[in-house]
Amino acid sequence: MDKMEKLTVVKVGGKIVEDEESLQQLLQDFSAIEGAKVLVHGGGRSATKVAAQLGIESTMIGGRRVTDAEMLKVVTMVYGGLVNKSIVARLQACGINALGLTGADMNVMQSHKRPLKKVKMEDGVEQMVDFGFVGDVDACDGRMLATLIDEGVVPVMAPLTHDKQGHLLNTNADTIAGETAKALAPYFDVTLIYSFEHAGVLTDPDDEASVIPHITAESFEQLKADGVVSGGMIPKIENALEAVKAGVKRVIITKADAIDGKQGTVIS
Amino acid sequence: MDKMEKLTVVKVGGKIVEDEESLQQLLQDFSAIEGAKVLVHGGGRSATKVAAQLGIESTMIGGRRVTDAEMLKVVTMVYGGLVNKSIVARLQACGINALGLTGADMNVMQSHKRPLKKVKMEDGVEQMVDFGFVGDVDACDGRMLATLIDEGVVPVMAPLTHDKQGHLLNTNADTIAGETAKALAPYFDVTLIYSFEHAGVLTDPDDEASVIPHITAESFEQLKADGVVSGGMIPKIENALEAVKAGVKRVIITKADAIDGKQGTVIS
Repeated sequence: MDKMEKLTVVKVGGKIVEDEESLQQLLQDFSAIEGAKVLVHGGGRSATKVAAQLGIESTMIGGRRVTDAEMLKVVTMVYGGLVNKSIVARLQACGINALGLTGADMNVMQSHKRPLKKVKMEDGVEQMVDFGFVGDVDACDGRMLATLIDEGVVPVMAPLTHDKQGHLLNTNADTIAGETAKALAPYFDVTLIYSFEHAGVLTDPDDEASVIPHITAESFEQLKADGVVSGGMIPKIENALEAVKAGVKRVIITKADAIDGKQGTVIS
Repeated sequence: MDKMEKLTVVKVGGKIVEDEESLQQLLQDFSAIEGAKVLVHGGGRSATKVAAQLGIESTMIGGRRVTDAEMLKVVTMVYGGLVNKSIVARLQACGINALGLTGADMNVMQSHKRPLKKVKMEDGVEQMVDFGFVGDVDACDGRMLATLIDEGVVPVMAPLTHDKQGHLLNTNADTIAGETAKALAPYFDVTLIYSFEHAGVLTDPDDEASVIPHITAESFEQLKADGVVSGGMIPKIENALEAVKAGVKRVIITKADAIDGKQGTVIS
């Protein structure tokens, strides 16, 4: 088999794209990434803000948004319209041939409405929660995305999917990024970059210099056993390892100002 | 040259896509159109409604919206997000491989900000008006659209363009439809359908049965001279004739429930 072309999937949270200064930096850094690329963005803060302006209350359970019919309209407007199209227009100005996509567009990402889910509430009691119009991903059309990318197109993906029955569904941006990276793995040498608020996976949460440079499936078991990684980092690393198992070459967990992938924790 | 494949560009106003019943009918009718197709939609009423809910006043001058920075955010949310993505998801459920696009996406439609324009006000006095972030179209990438259409994709176009300098611009949906039809004319046998509130161009505005079946450049001059067509119909027909001159095979002005093109006024 030929050496595959490099492709980078970058996931950035809402916080980065909602602040003018950090967005400008991100667009510059993203434009500078060599080879094929895909940008996946969040937008939760803007959605909360617009919802509040419209008099719609945002309900979060266990850190996740409950998406009722009114909130689905808000996230469709904010993620699919305001945030996505603003980024696309800005990237076009940087000479990047961006194309904004939700999962409904060309059916690139199909999902089903999440069934009721057991969630541990703040008081420690488990409860069945209906998250509303939230999608759990079933399939991503890597072939269609690869065809576009081969044409020089840079997909910019909003955290929305659809059920192929006419309904849009609010979908976690980390999941969108992971599924996109996995679906493109047969066509490219894929690096998946998850940007978040820390410099990487830290051994000491209070020390940004304590980044673990490399985690593998084996070392992860040890890190867990030793209690070095815990809490919210565990599912993040598990997802990264799952992506690697599915053919993604490496996942890098890093800060938003280091999406060139030269810093942070490499999971492979 | 080979006989070209048929392609239909359908433009529907905001009123049709904003009412659940008429939208359902439209989606069925649009799905039933044979051959390649493109849907262009408005969304002005939803934009006005969302703007009002956000406490933003809509200013109209000479029937056209003034788009200040706040209103641009609203139309980006409503046209690019809510209306566009809802239609895309619904068409996917009808088995149509829809792709929602603004002009910024893949740079399909580039425009420049409209310069100050002389407008006759209600009192008859002419005044220079700044319509704000409104785009006058410079170019439509028919090649890119034709490539997608050849892949079985059905573009769904929102009335937004961009200036390639990072700014989205609010753009008249009739113009988007006309420019799209013209840009696709080298690749397809194009029919452009403008749906509006009447059954066609009428000789008697109070009689929906008085549809003029066919208008050509020559007969249009006579119709104008005889005062049969006047007011807002004149620029509509002029635009249609311009599209025909640019290679569009026929333009049909008809009611939204007749987008199969079998009724209405044919301009060719």
